Amino acid sequence: MSTFTLVIGNKNYSSWSLRPWLVLKQIGINFSEIRIPLYTATARQELLRHSPAGKVPILHHGDITVWESLAICEYVAEYFPDAYLLPQEPSARALAHSISAEMHASFYKLRYSMPMNCRARLPGLGMQPGVQEDIDRILDIWNNCRNNFGSSGDMLFGNFTIPDAMFAPVVLRFMTYGVKLDSTSQAYAEAILALPAIQEWIAAAQDESETIPEFELSSKYSLTQSD
Amino acid sequence: MSTFTLVIGNKNYSSWSLRPWLVLKQIGINFSEIRIPLYTATARQELLRHSPAGKVPILHHGDITVWESLAICEYVAEYFPDAYLLPQEPSARALAHSISAEMHASFYKLRYSMPMNCRARLPGLGMQPGVQEDIDRILDIWNNCRNNFGSSGDMLFGNFTIPDAMFAPVVLRFMTYGVKLDSTSQAYAEAILALPAIQEWIAAAQDESETIPEFELSSKYSLTQSD
Repeated sequence: MSTFTLVIGNKNYSSWSLRPWLVLKQIGINFSEIRIPLYTATARQELLRHSPAGKVPILHHGDITVWESLAICEYVAEYFPDAYLLPQEPSARALAHSISAEMHASFYKLRYSMPMNCRARLPGLGMQPGVQEDIDRILDIWNNCRNNFGSSGDMLFGNFTIPDAMFAPVVLRFMTYGVKLDSTSQAYAEAILALPAIQEWIAAAQDESETIPEFELSSKYSLTQSD
Repeated sequence: MSTFTLVIGNKNYSSWSLRPWLVLKQIGINFSEIRIPLYTATARQELLRHSPAGKVPILHHGDITVWESLAICEYVAEYFPDAYLLPQEPSARALAHSISAEMHASFYKLRYSMPMNCRARLPGLGMQPGVQEDIDRILDIWNNCRNNFGSSGDMLFGNFTIPDAMFAPVVLRFMTYGVKLDSTSQAYAEAILALPAIQEWIAAAQDESETIPEFELSSKYSLTQSD
């Protein structure tokens, strides 16, 4: 089997990097990491050496290169069919495809106003106009999955699947900004946080030394005020 | 086989609706359309009757509902494996996944500054800051696919696949705003425009009576100026 190498950004900030990283960890395969700190003078050029799109995450698998978090997750799911990274039952699978794509392309207000910042605790910050609507939609998704398809485990579709990877960074955002959750969503968030791979990611984020002001909410607000 | 029903927005404006519609047409299956004109007082409520995400496109297949253009395309690809809606060769398939996901979640500046408007001809409009970078990246993608994987036909990977559906609305935007293309991209754009299904979509767009000012570039500029 060819080797897998995942190119990622800062673990503290790069929500897109976490998604395929978590998938690779959850299925227990060996892979190397290349970490490229973002928002530096050389980051873009380094990224362009790995993929023409110039963005993390990027997966190298032998001679093959895949980019975009969702595409990497799908590539891994197809390469390891026995890992069952998508539900098999047709209606669950259709829902898994839909909510993964929805996460991939939506929730701009939440993503902009509550940037992932694993090591920070900023309860109450980030609740800009429109963010609560994004949160409500996400909690609807989690409740729908957990109540209708989740009985065989504590993930969205019971066992771990791609949608859990897609929403894991949202769990970390909710933790950072102290977002209030209903009981079903709270239990789901705790199950994600309890995954050893998530604990490993957060510990690595805490060990990182870089600070990116664009993703630090307190400095972001001061920057906006002085604009 | 259960019936397929696709919920779409205005054909003149809804680029996301075109993508799965084109996939269904290209594989030649029968399906019904429910057209919900967007930006009306009742549109959101009507959409929420079809999907909890409240956005077009939405596919109903028997009891199953799928939303998000990319998820619908993937669902159809899995349901009709003999249609080969994704390339089979691993490196081509990885590229197809990557660029489809990239289209699904990127190119904001192009999408905002050059809204799809099939029946309009506004050459030179829409070239706001950052748009040329989006165009350059898209032309890179098209050249890479056509030059490395396209020899068996005139689509990105030879025969029609999901990436062609994802980029078809971009071809229509380039036509509307008179974007200058290199010769490989021009030939590809012409091949997309020559598809009978695309001609059918454009003809239907021309027959629509609604005008959405948010997507009409000339009125959008006047609106911005008077803000």
